[in-house]
Amino acid sequence: MRTSSFFSKASGFLRSHASSSKLLVLLSLSSAGSFVAYSDSQAETSTPNLDLAQKDPKKKRIVVLGTGWAGTSFLKDLDISSCDVQVVSPRNYFAFTPLLPSVTCGTVEARSIVEPVRNIVKKRNGEIRFWEAECLKIDAANNRVMCRSNIENLVGNREFSLEYDYLVVAVGAQVNTFNTPGVKENCYFLKEVEDAQKIRAGVIDCFEKAVLPGLSEEERRTNLHFVIVGGGPTGVEFAAELHDFFQEDLVKLYPMVKDLVKITMVQSGDHILNMFDERISSFAERKFQRDGIEVLTGCRVLDVSEKAITMKNKAKGETSSVPHGLVVWSTGVGPRPLVRDFMEQIGQEDISAIFKAADKDNSGTLTVKEFQDVIEDIVIRYPQVDLYLKSKHLMDVTDLLRDPEGRERDEVDIEGFKLALSHVDSQMKSLPATAQVAAQQGAYLSHCFNRMEQCAENPEGPRRFRSTGRHAFRPFQYKHFGQFAPLGGEQAAAELPGDWVSMGHSTQWLWYSVYASKQVSWRTRVLVVSDWTRRFIFGRDSSRI
Amino acid sequence: MRTSSFFSKASGFLRSHASSSKLLVLLSLSSAGSFVAYSDSQAETSTPNLDLAQKDPKKKRIVVLGTGWAGTSFLKDLDISSCDVQVVSPRNYFAFTPLLPSVTCGTVEARSIVEPVRNIVKKRNGEIRFWEAECLKIDAANNRVMCRSNIENLVGNREFSLEYDYLVVAVGAQVNTFNTPGVKENCYFLKEVEDAQKIRAGVIDCFEKAVLPGLSEEERRTNLHFVIVGGGPTGVEFAAELHDFFQEDLVKLYPMVKDLVKITMVQSGDHILNMFDERISSFAERKFQRDGIEVLTGCRVLDVSEKAITMKNKAKGETSSVPHGLVVWSTGVGPRPLVRDFMEQIGQEDISAIFKAADKDNSGTLTVKEFQDVIEDIVIRYPQVDLYLKSKHLMDVTDLLRDPEGRERDEVDIEGFKLALSHVDSQMKSLPATAQVAAQQGAYLSHCFNRMEQCAENPEGPRRFRSTGRHAFRPFQYKHFGQFAPLGGEQAAAELPGDWVSMGHSTQWLWYSVYASKQVSWRTRVLVVSDWTRRFIFGRDSSRI
Repeated sequence: MRTSSFFSKASGFLRSHASSSKLLVLLSLSSAGSFVAYSDSQAETSTPNLDLAQKDPKKKRIVVLGTGWAGTSFLKDLDISSCDVQVVSPRNYFAFTPLLPSVTCGTVEARSIVEPVRNIVKKRNGEIRFWEAECLKIDAANNRVMCRSNIENLVGNREFSLEYDYLVVAVGAQVNTFNTPGVKENCYFLKEVEDAQKIRAGVIDCFEKAVLPGLSEEERRTNLHFVIVGGGPTGVEFAAELHDFFQEDLVKLYPMVKDLVKITMVQSGDHILNMFDERISSFAERKFQRDGIEVLTGCRVLDVSEKAITMKNKAKGETSSVPHGLVVWSTGVGPRPLVRDFMEQIGQEDISAIFKAADKDNSGTLTVKEFQDVIEDIVIRYPQVDLYLKSKHLMDVTDLLRDPEGRERDEVDIEGFKLALSHVDSQMKSLPATAQVAAQQGAYLSHCFNRMEQCAENPEGPRRFRSTGRHAFRPFQYKHFGQFAPLGGEQAAAELPGDWVSMGHSTQWLWYSVYASKQVSWRTRVLVVSDWTRRFIFGRDSSRI
Repeated sequence: MRTSSFFSKASGFLRSHASSSKLLVLLSLSSAGSFVAYSDSQAETSTPNLDLAQKDPKKKRIVVLGTGWAGTSFLKDLDISSCDVQVVSPRNYFAFTPLLPSVTCGTVEARSIVEPVRNIVKKRNGEIRFWEAECLKIDAANNRVMCRSNIENLVGNREFSLEYDYLVVAVGAQVNTFNTPGVKENCYFLKEVEDAQKIRAGVIDCFEKAVLPGLSEEERRTNLHFVIVGGGPTGVEFAAELHDFFQEDLVKLYPMVKDLVKITMVQSGDHILNMFDERISSFAERKFQRDGIEVLTGCRVLDVSEKAITMKNKAKGETSSVPHGLVVWSTGVGPRPLVRDFMEQIGQEDISAIFKAADKDNSGTLTVKEFQDVIEDIVIRYPQVDLYLKSKHLMDVTDLLRDPEGRERDEVDIEGFKLALSHVDSQMKSLPATAQVAAQQGAYLSHCFNRMEQCAENPEGPRRFRSTGRHAFRPFQYKHFGQFAPLGGEQAAAELPGDWVSMGHSTQWLWYSVYASKQVSWRTRVLVVSDWTRRFIFGRDSSRI
């Protein structure tokens, strides 16, 4: 779960708007903490060259950064007849990330969950150009992105820049280590396809290490101690996969260590899967207990060294250090430096701009009425603010206006206004960092592009802060279709819309059918299903490649 | 093709024999230039520990180094009821190496051609123990091997040593760069599974590099110039795979560079596939010409830099330097340092020992009769010597005894004897470095072990040099079942026993059926066949993972 500063995004929106007459919308794409924005350029003075020249100057130049769920879903739904689209991503493929935990233990092969971007793009008649490169910097003032190819031994210049009328930032997030010492150096992660492949080799390594001659039993135990930090869906699914891999396959090949394997899950909260319904949480905890997976709740990791992990039990205040064979860090994600830098560029004058727009009489203070108006607009743009206010039992937005001692105020100056908003901002969680959210956001964005002219004439969005009139589009609203948590042993838990909860073997079969149907191509669908079949017949492969 | 010094092995045989009463046989395993030897120990004073303790002191302690074709074939056929077997290899899997060229372009997945050693070993009721480690040194004098695990983050001691009564050295060979500058740093190889995976990513990289914005056409051409050094079966098959990958799959995804791709094959000999029948060679050359694959024969590579490859045309004496995007080096293999070191240890007194055994009257010189006797024994042990003598039209072994001016001699002293043998040794090629040879050698060796007692009573081998009597076993004789050379476009060439040659599409289908049937397990068989099917339906994947 990622807490993102939605006001800095709101500010980005305002700032972009200020510098551009064609601004559309800016929204946070939370899948894997990604971030999507688009704004148009003022100047259209690009220097054409062989590749970057706009084919038809009348077309909107769109640059898409990233080929994850949001970027791909955007590309798939976009009507490209009036767009000139360029896509930049360091990965030339789309990965079906919800199956990454399955890749860690070979239940599904890495190759089965990826689809080349060019294959997706090809179907659009070549109107979309793709560059395998990393965006290093967004120059928002000049509507330009600076990119560099990371491929080694490149003959020619590896850096280039692209100009855009509209920029879609869908670069995803990066692993969040919370600056815990030693995590970057000594932990495995589960964010990219390569991460999953590394874990797979790492798990096999642990078993091969543990059976080497001349080790003491204690050393064997240490080599086979798998620690998972983070009790979210990813961590839980990996723990379940690992347990199955061992029980179903590895125990036959490494029978001598069958009593030495231990899986420990470290969770800072009081329960694992705490974003799920409580029934699912406790079902998962009971299942893990039966499976012998130790769950340490209320524990915060202080340090990870090559050999040991140090954590603090928050309730008892005790610090303990446990030797480990392999640690997987799966505590959530944070924004990438590129996005942080971009948000800083566009997010300088945020709150003062909102304040200025709200202060209709230019009195330097907002009355309760003025404050209510601006919050209502914010609530339309960010429906989650409403949820937050409700969850905090702030029935009336004027509650936000109370002074630090809790007394009601009639008016608030800019400092008080900043305080009130930062109160919301610091507490509010953005949408969950799931594929589902990102895919919907990408589709929403392409929908906006496809109806751009129509909505320019008949705007349907909320009021603009810096000028008169309304925004062209309704803001994005997330529709939750439910969420799965596979728990191993052919069991899964699912939270379905309407407070429905489903758990057990039948849910695992539901999981199989949903995941098969959601595949991005027929090729990956066939591969994933045949991987599952292959696993049922032959088990998982334990070759260390 | 590898030229191996068979006399140093012969000498090893003698030396081992000298220090041991139970010596069996030593032979060269040429698959991928591997080397198999076994000798027994004099002392059986092992220090038992938890893992290494011999379970039954009456059993023969066999240590096998390597899990390639020879090692695996040995293990599969060995009667383990009277053996205590330990296997040491840095790879915990067996790889079906003849399909490696298919892995480079994704025709077959890497995972589909590997089988865990523990799976193969498991079927033997756990009597065979496997350690994933590298053998660093063979201490032949003490019948001990020093091993080290290469796994990172190992808790406990990573080094250990094993004692053996019999040692089977089947570690395979390593790539031979002929000390050409820059090859190690700037070339891809095609020896291990990881090599094939690297080439696959490298090929995709080249295409992604070539389409980046801002490159000149010349730079694009350079990035897409694939050079293959070595016109043997591996190089030829890779060139064919690469050509198919481009023509069948990549051209659809990278249509903008379809005229810029170039494949060049550099061969030092006058023809590619020159170990095959001439009809196959010229068929392959004609096919490559039609496909636009340039074949540079009679060229020797002098240097490979990051950007260019420098070669010399042997006939014209001209040196030229060509820019490249990727170079695959596939010129053959040489012995590993471990094996070289072992051969030095056991191969000091070789020729003088043979001389001493042959010099029955202790005169210090060999008469023609004495020389003939020893050569006849050598010919039984090394049938290829006979072939060599015939190929050189040395109808009578006494031809070897001629002095440097070509005059016949009646007697020869030790210096002359050394010269005569080194003459044979330097010219003679050992068996081809193929899977077929190695597998037969492994099977032969296990057959020897299985009939050890029987043959000890009724020895069937050639005369011993250092003592009286005969060796227990007939030497290994290779039976050639033919060889394939896939040429791309669903065509292959095959050399079959009895001077039969088959070429074209039907041969490719023969290739499919032979390779499917030769798979080491049902799992890999199903995977390989489903990979082929998947390729027919969906093409090869171009995701860069």
